[in-house]
Amino acid sequence: MTAPWSRNLQRDRCGVLTVEIEHVDVATLEMLEQQGVDCQPKASTIRIIQDKYLQKVHFSQHAIPLPEFMQIDDLEGAKRAGDLFGYPLMIKSKRLAYDGRGNAVANSEEELPSAVTALGGFDRGLYVEKWAPFVKELAVIVARGRDDSILCYPVVETIHRENICHIVKAPANVTWDIRNRATDVAYKAVSSLEGAGVFAVELFLTGDGQILLNEVAPRPHNSGHHTIESCYTSQYEQHLRAVAGLPLGDPSMKSPAAIMYNILGEDEGESGFVLAHQLIKRALSIPRATVHWYDKPEMRKQRKMGHVTIVGSSLGEVEEQLKAMLKEECSSYPSAVTPHVGIIMGSDSDLPVMKDAARILNMFDVPYEVKIVSAHRTPEVMFSYASSAWERGIQVIIAGAGGAAHLPGMVAALTPLPVIGVPVRASALDGLDSLLSIVQMPRGVPVATVAINNATNAGLLAVRMLGIKDVDLLARMSQYQEDTKNDVLKKAEKLEKDGWESYLNP
Amino acid sequence: MTAPWSRNLQRDRCGVLTVEIEHVDVATLEMLEQQGVDCQPKASTIRIIQDKYLQKVHFSQHAIPLPEFMQIDDLEGAKRAGDLFGYPLMIKSKRLAYDGRGNAVANSEEELPSAVTALGGFDRGLYVEKWAPFVKELAVIVARGRDDSILCYPVVETIHRENICHIVKAPANVTWDIRNRATDVAYKAVSSLEGAGVFAVELFLTGDGQILLNEVAPRPHNSGHHTIESCYTSQYEQHLRAVAGLPLGDPSMKSPAAIMYNILGEDEGESGFVLAHQLIKRALSIPRATVHWYDKPEMRKQRKMGHVTIVGSSLGEVEEQLKAMLKEECSSYPSAVTPHVGIIMGSDSDLPVMKDAARILNMFDVPYEVKIVSAHRTPEVMFSYASSAWERGIQVIIAGAGGAAHLPGMVAALTPLPVIGVPVRASALDGLDSLLSIVQMPRGVPVATVAINNATNAGLLAVRMLGIKDVDLLARMSQYQEDTKNDVLKKAEKLEKDGWESYLNP
Repeated sequence: MTAPWSRNLQRDRCGVLTVEIEHVDVATLEMLEQQGVDCQPKASTIRIIQDKYLQKVHFSQHAIPLPEFMQIDDLEGAKRAGDLFGYPLMIKSKRLAYDGRGNAVANSEEELPSAVTALGGFDRGLYVEKWAPFVKELAVIVARGRDDSILCYPVVETIHRENICHIVKAPANVTWDIRNRATDVAYKAVSSLEGAGVFAVELFLTGDGQILLNEVAPRPHNSGHHTIESCYTSQYEQHLRAVAGLPLGDPSMKSPAAIMYNILGEDEGESGFVLAHQLIKRALSIPRATVHWYDKPEMRKQRKMGHVTIVGSSLGEVEEQLKAMLKEECSSYPSAVTPHVGIIMGSDSDLPVMKDAARILNMFDVPYEVKIVSAHRTPEVMFSYASSAWERGIQVIIAGAGGAAHLPGMVAALTPLPVIGVPVRASALDGLDSLLSIVQMPRGVPVATVAINNATNAGLLAVRMLGIKDVDLLARMSQYQEDTKNDVLKKAEKLEKDGWESYLNP
Repeated sequence: MTAPWSRNLQRDRCGVLTVEIEHVDVATLEMLEQQGVDCQPKASTIRIIQDKYLQKVHFSQHAIPLPEFMQIDDLEGAKRAGDLFGYPLMIKSKRLAYDGRGNAVANSEEELPSAVTALGGFDRGLYVEKWAPFVKELAVIVARGRDDSILCYPVVETIHRENICHIVKAPANVTWDIRNRATDVAYKAVSSLEGAGVFAVELFLTGDGQILLNEVAPRPHNSGHHTIESCYTSQYEQHLRAVAGLPLGDPSMKSPAAIMYNILGEDEGESGFVLAHQLIKRALSIPRATVHWYDKPEMRKQRKMGHVTIVGSSLGEVEEQLKAMLKEECSSYPSAVTPHVGIIMGSDSDLPVMKDAARILNMFDVPYEVKIVSAHRTPEVMFSYASSAWERGIQVIIAGAGGAAHLPGMVAALTPLPVIGVPVRASALDGLDSLLSIVQMPRGVPVATVAINNATNAGLLAVRMLGIKDVDLLARMSQYQEDTKNDVLKKAEKLEKDGWESYLNP
């Protein structure tokens, strides 16, 4: 017999049926598919995913790396698993596990019975997983179109609080190699499932650099909430494009960095709302933060009540802003104007030259910092300055040095940022020594060298570089060139009018 | 007497009242204000704006530059205005003018009666405006908070079709000076009005560089639709923040360029829908395009049925994609991978050196083009290449030259983009001539110079520069540095193991 609501889903009335959550009655989905209703992703996928044990079996059959696991039917089985995998031991419900519910940790054999009881006993269907000694949890949103085209969003880092997703950093601050391998695992995992849609692939990164699959959700996911503000196509639009058979949109980031913070219920009832509203008030004063409040009628501890996404030009910048947002007493926030350019020099004797770079950055309203960092006298300072610059939000480094000028090249060796070198004229050789020391870098480590003592051009070059992502700066640079031209034309006109003799002797 | 619905707006039930369109009954608004309802913007602002003649009087009293205008009450008055302002003469309805309705042009005195009739006659309230000989129409969305803080969105260019907004380019491709002056006029215009909210200020840019105010709308506006995808805070969120007394969000662009295209009704009824749906289908295959379909029940000629916004890394790129979208027969679209780096050289004899830059860009998957452009032998080609590079979507130029190497410096003089110079070793002087010719640029025009013949470093420097806006590239650069380190460590280990003698003679 067909229920009346299922008749409404006949092929002629419903273009495509998708799910918002995998915990649905999969038998009904399968029946609908048999009746010709187009389900995306397929019921077979939902069936695999909603049973976490089945999910593990499926992925291990497809050679996806994942922590070892086994089904347990009684306490004896649990003990055997403990002997095999060691402790702590992860015990999980096969079904209806969500936001940390359905997981329990046994730290020793003695804790096994209470862990099993906490999960509702063996009748609920349990399995164990070998503890994954992860150093980071990563996630990848993967979209698959109806034509089986697959696009992956950037790898993110997820940080959990009591097993509930709390913070997501996009992109994950891991090496390119790890990003690539994480994306590969996610791609393969989704390829092994049937149907179109957006999938979230949760991964463990272990201390020895392994990527292990944790689990997959067949839908938009908390780890992809940041995409609403930070990516060209949000995971929600992407899911609709995928299931409706439209071409997939661009999943890449339009903002260099984003951080997502889940507003979790701190307290039951009114006092919880008061805390959340204070947080939201602080979030609203951060110019590049977006607040999402779900307007759930009831506040419960650890319940996801909303989220805040902050986008910015570097992870360091958005992390700073999040940190400030979480301080209850904070009344002002680090603005988006953390220094974008670092001007460094080997000695204060270089300052009379290097000040010209700062003057240009002032003129173009580019935030910068000025520091003395010597390659030869403060190598440790140089090391930590160069290797932390990107994380602090610095985007270009201008380094000036004279003589055997090592600072620009050494800094360039320690950062992936572009480094501009200013050869400062020292007492001997008219600065040629500085110039050659800076410009003649070996293959692999470039320094963008400007003319001897010409820190003005270093400032202008930094502005041009920043103009790559800031059209306002680019337009101001064009205007600067136009103004310079007009200055010269005025002089030319005066020479024309006055003649060269009175031009020279006014 | 108070209407029942107005009782529902008493202060205790309604936090704040705002308008979606200025054509509302302003007397009612004023009555509500007297009853204590908080209207934002103020009824006084709506009263001024909904009567275009009153609006002109108001702004001219506040010394905002605008085309000359005068009220006309009869044909004699219209003729006097024609004598005074010349033809073509713009005749406008004072009220209910919208999307080109309420405007009529008389090209000569003979056309005055028919223009007046087209507008419904003098009883409707008419005035005339001196024809503004504009070269571009610009617009600025301005947000004012309840604390009178004012933030301006980037200046955009609006292109009209039969008086209806058709295309919006963000930012406007005008000089920085013009952007500044346009923003100033918009700021002053909004400062002269009362109340919080988002305002759209439409402007004319005349051939002699004047900015004249056209009109102001006290609400989110078609010229700000692009902000949904391209700015940190959309005009809609900004309006709500403003009227609700929340801090204003960041109005700047998170994407370097955007183009908005209004889907206007081409035809009544079904055939109009077919054309629109074909357009939408093409728009959906552009990876960074977002389609907004308003789902209006009826299609009318010139009616705004929806819009498409394309974002990208340059105006040139998004304009190309829009052009392709509008070609009916087009089956494939220019992807977002227009060249980002231009590799140019003075002569094909430089290619054996310059190829190394291309190899690096291949390795990092950066799209590029390779061209021969000689400063001395093809100066016109160099001029057009350099001055059009930005518009075509080029973000960094790598120029190689030998001897009296002028190409990098000349190109840098003709573009606001960063230019990397590669000194190519010519027959004499071991390349020192090339190096000094490239690096010793005068103040004002920087060239980022790398070592002699080291095009590898030029490629790497270009990648670092592009990494400023592309964290993936930055991570790949870090990985490249890591891989280089490991290569050296392997060699060090081998030397350690083999000893230096067998290392040299394996």
